[in-house]
Amino acid sequence: MLPGMRAAVFDKPGTQGGTLSLRELPSEPLPPGHVRVRMKFAPIHPSDRLYIAGTYGKAPERWPAVPGFEGVGTVVEARGLLGRFLKGRRVCVLAAGSGTWAEEVIVPARRVIPIPAGLSDEQAATFFINPATALALTRHVHMLRAGEWVVQTAANSQVGRMVIRLGKAAGFRTINLVRRPEQIDPLRSLGGDVCLVHDAETADPESLRSQIEAQVGKAPLRAAIDPVGGPLGSTVFSLLGEGGLFVAYGSLDSRPLAIPSRSLIAGDRRVEGFWLGPWMERKSLPAKIALIREMRRFHQEKVFETQVTATHPLADVQTALQQAERSGGKILLDLR
Amino acid sequence: MLPGMRAAVFDKPGTQGGTLSLRELPSEPLPPGHVRVRMKFAPIHPSDRLYIAGTYGKAPERWPAVPGFEGVGTVVEARGLLGRFLKGRRVCVLAAGSGTWAEEVIVPARRVIPIPAGLSDEQAATFFINPATALALTRHVHMLRAGEWVVQTAANSQVGRMVIRLGKAAGFRTINLVRRPEQIDPLRSLGGDVCLVHDAETADPESLRSQIEAQVGKAPLRAAIDPVGGPLGSTVFSLLGEGGLFVAYGSLDSRPLAIPSRSLIAGDRRVEGFWLGPWMERKSLPAKIALIREMRRFHQEKVFETQVTATHPLADVQTALQQAERSGGKILLDLR
Repeated sequence: MLPGMRAAVFDKPGTQGGTLSLRELPSEPLPPGHVRVRMKFAPIHPSDRLYIAGTYGKAPERWPAVPGFEGVGTVVEARGLLGRFLKGRRVCVLAAGSGTWAEEVIVPARRVIPIPAGLSDEQAATFFINPATALALTRHVHMLRAGEWVVQTAANSQVGRMVIRLGKAAGFRTINLVRRPEQIDPLRSLGGDVCLVHDAETADPESLRSQIEAQVGKAPLRAAIDPVGGPLGSTVFSLLGEGGLFVAYGSLDSRPLAIPSRSLIAGDRRVEGFWLGPWMERKSLPAKIALIREMRRFHQEKVFETQVTATHPLADVQTALQQAERSGGKILLDLR
Repeated sequence: MLPGMRAAVFDKPGTQGGTLSLRELPSEPLPPGHVRVRMKFAPIHPSDRLYIAGTYGKAPERWPAVPGFEGVGTVVEARGLLGRFLKGRRVCVLAAGSGTWAEEVIVPARRVIPIPAGLSDEQAATFFINPATALALTRHVHMLRAGEWVVQTAANSQVGRMVIRLGKAAGFRTINLVRRPEQIDPLRSLGGDVCLVHDAETADPESLRSQIEAQVGKAPLRAAIDPVGGPLGSTVFSLLGEGGLFVAYGSLDSRPLAIPSRSLIAGDRRVEGFWLGPWMERKSLPAKIALIREMRRFHQEKVFETQVTATHPLADVQTALQQAERSGGKILLDLR
């Protein structure tokens, strides 16, 4: 019998949502074309909480389920041609089937990304999800060119900050909405072109529009990215000019967007959603390779740097989860 | 001086919306590349009422303005190569600058469509707008293939009926929502595959979903077209499955659509608007010619037959407008 490994697991959630516990799981034999990765670090993303609560877009394939969508580790065993090339290398793991909050993960060899030596373990653990989201939203979904504007909500989030730095690196310009005045200066220092406080519950959309026009001019805004939804998302949609595209990539506010049919019709505006996993699945292999290459470059330029606030051992996963709810920076699990 | 011609006109609307009056306008000299059309009939469309009230997506280019987006007449004068080929022919006019509710209209030669002899003046007067909308929505925006389903609201409208008959002719299948039980049988006779009564103010979206599933099965619905918006449009959006596209082409209900960000993201759903004029403008000339050819064929097959309820002389335009508000069928103005 193979030795066991520890993992954070949750059982099929009832209406109350799942709860995590630590468990010893049997270490499984490696299928062909797969690699076994001994994990070092894995981040806690907002989507992990939805996944554990049973409100994520996709349910686990088996129970008990291990959360964790990405992380860094070392390939310790490999089967297949690609796998052999990966053996012994430090890789970012994109979970498939079973998650990364475990001492060991088995994934198809095509779901690990070799990490260049220059990148720290912390940055390697968060190599993919937020950076790829920021890159895909701005350069692939919106295809922003130099000088073009994008308006984003939750600009102080990790993705928001990456979008700002990506704008500096790639030449597009950002209008950044945050909830609190003290968030303005840090975003300006990162390179946010326009940074504004807006509370959709109390403030008037028209005053936001005038504030933006005062800094950006009257040219129609064509691109919005929004992880919030609800009244704030609706306000941002209303800022878009003719031909504008609103892309939702999160629903921190569970209330729906209010979208007037008239503004869709008369202004040729569109509303879409973005979900990284399926978006990647639709890409061809050459397109995926090109994306990873583009990401490596921006990682090296520190465009994709994640702020890590704290690291907790796997045994303290509950504490880590609680801290992640409150923290602006990223919380990592130490899986060594 | 050229002889005058009578037209229905409205002056720049205040907040009360414009009001129509009959006026004698000077007959203007014909610019190069244009044709002068002596009008026979023009329909009253819902968009005419918005145009007169000043709430249409586009304001008139000059005042007083003449409403009317299409109509049938005879080319009586022409300048340019294309124009000379059109002289003496019966054409459908697509208004540009000044509308069709007049004894005479001047338009660029490329904005008239020669009408085959087999088509009555009534059908020629409504040759383009509703038929092109039905065709574009189902075969160009949605690209429905044989066997695929589309769900539509206001299925009893002229466009709705054309969509049903187009489904029969082209092989796609229709789920038709109407407000009143007595509208069901006529739509079934036209060939509506599934016809259901739904009042979004009082009925439960889930019961609508079960009614549809009972007749259509559990395969995800991918296409919706909606001229209503508000709660009904929102309900129809919620019926869409993964990859679904909701296309708004009217806003009879001025309340916004309620679109949960989650359903955009997790199901890769999209929301767009459709406006015939700009959609046509974006088409290449060969694509426009192909569209007109496709339309001629469906007109000959009576797929695009408009129900004409009544015809009123231009002098009775007020009566005609009032009747158009209540009538299910189309009201024409007699401009001879």
